Amino acid sequence: MLKYYGRGARRMILRDMLNQTSDDLDGTQMSLDAVFAALAHPVRRGMVERLTRAPATVGDLAAPLTMSLPSVVQHLKILEDSGLVRSAKTGRVRTCYLETRGLTGLQHWLAAQRAEWEARTDRLEEFLLDKDDTDDGRST
Amino acid sequence: MLKYYGRGARRMILRDMLNQTSDDLDGTQMSLDAVFAALAHPVRRGMVERLTRAPATVGDLAAPLTMSLPSVVQHLKILEDSGLVRSAKTGRVRTCYLETRGLTGLQHWLAAQRAEWEARTDRLEEFLLDKDDTDDGRST
Repeated sequence: MLKYYGRGARRMILRDMLNQTSDDLDGTQMSLDAVFAALAHPVRRGMVERLTRAPATVGDLAAPLTMSLPSVVQHLKILEDSGLVRSAKTGRVRTCYLETRGLTGLQHWLAAQRAEWEARTDRLEEFLLDKDDTDDGRST
Repeated sequence: MLKYYGRGARRMILRDMLNQTSDDLDGTQMSLDAVFAALAHPVRRGMVERLTRAPATVGDLAAPLTMSLPSVVQHLKILEDSGLVRSAKTGRVRTCYLETRGLTGLQHWLAAQRAEWEARTDRLEEFLLDKDDTDDGRST
């Protein structure tokens, strides 16, 4: 079907498809609480870092870790419950995928805080610069 | 001293001073674990949101909340321990300030994940578009 579109349009459609996740489709709302809590452990951040590069099996994720498989699975469960990761089993192998929507939610929250902070810094700057100009005026 | 510099230079110096925090100076390393954990509660995120706009007293932070003062103080302590907030007491009043370095650390981690993810999306796109071009070639 894609071949009926130009390369530019196909790029946009594909980008849209790649960003579409099962969470978008069933409309479940991700919880910022659960996302922040899930990322509050270096092992789980390590798993997310690994999954940003490519999907990985549970074995792949466990390989660099010096912990038991049940512990690995427990960390994975926290990531899955938070919505940051989903997994699918084919035969005996479970493959894990990153759900970027979780990180996007986090990024939106941070951007909102940054916007507030920068607006405040700008106001403070203006105040201090105006004050300094007035002081200059006085000293000459 | 600032009056010896042009307005542009003074703006840069002030911006630098405003971003400088006591944490930068004593070189303590903020823990991403503690920052993520601190932000995993809506009350604490609410306090951070309030403090991005302006410093606030403990009373200010408690005002919109329907919880006891000891609970408010406990949430504040978690924010302070994470390095996201610092406070100073003048007489009987404790004023809380946002330490932006905590949010900056978080932002850096997120940006690194996003960069990895986008590089991967680009590679996947190229692969799918090239594949589609080849398919077109075959069908004509």
